Amino acid sequence: MKRFEKHIFICENKRPPDNPRGCCFDKGSAEVREAFKKRLAELGLKSEVRANSAGCLDACEFGATVVIYPEQIWYGGVKIGDVEEIIQSHILKNLPVQRLMINHPSYNKDAKA
Amino acid sequence: MKRFEKHIFICENKRPPDNPRGCCFDKGSAEVREAFKKRLAELGLKSEVRANSAGCLDACEFGATVVIYPEQIWYGGVKIGDVEEIIQSHILKNLPVQRLMINHPSYNKDAKA
Repeated sequence: MKRFEKHIFICENKRPPDNPRGCCFDKGSAEVREAFKKRLAELGLKSEVRANSAGCLDACEFGATVVIYPEQIWYGGVKIGDVEEIIQSHILKNLPVQRLMINHPSYNKDAKA
Repeated sequence: MKRFEKHIFICENKRPPDNPRGCCFDKGSAEVREAFKKRLAELGLKSEVRANSAGCLDACEFGATVVIYPEQIWYGGVKIGDVEEIIQSHILKNLPVQRLMINHPSYNKDAKA
């Protein structure tokens, strides 16, 4: 087994308010990370699954952006209310949450097959 | 192809100076990330390989810590002078740099086989 079975990276990059790309931080990503962290702890998954803060993941326009490794599934527009579904489906059953996956072939090309 | 062929996460977490675990930031991780970023750009690899800032990767005692996905190889004690070798060997030839891998079975158990 690897150190983490799943490693969840949540973009917490913050840009100035006038930046045309926007930023994940302003879309609530810090709260999303806290929600992941809290729920993973409650479920006793802390040692196998880590919710990690990340700098800019270069997917600002899709934020709040989350990428889960090792499978590199990209989620966009993630809100606190989505955390439970991602954990129950993707983390626990290895079934990525289709409706939240970034709908762009540069991100989830293979995953959508 | 996935969005990134290799995704390099460099821990830039900063702790107070008296914290017994130490922190990657104080071991120069921000400069290591800059070195990765600069060199990847010079080599024209920016669109396939990303050097990303990360929050605490929970490997403080091994810092500066770098983890590379999708293979989840953990490197410890990474310095600016190691960046070229990691890029030339691991990133370009898929040959992890053994001498820099964290020598602890919780991190690189499979990788050392």
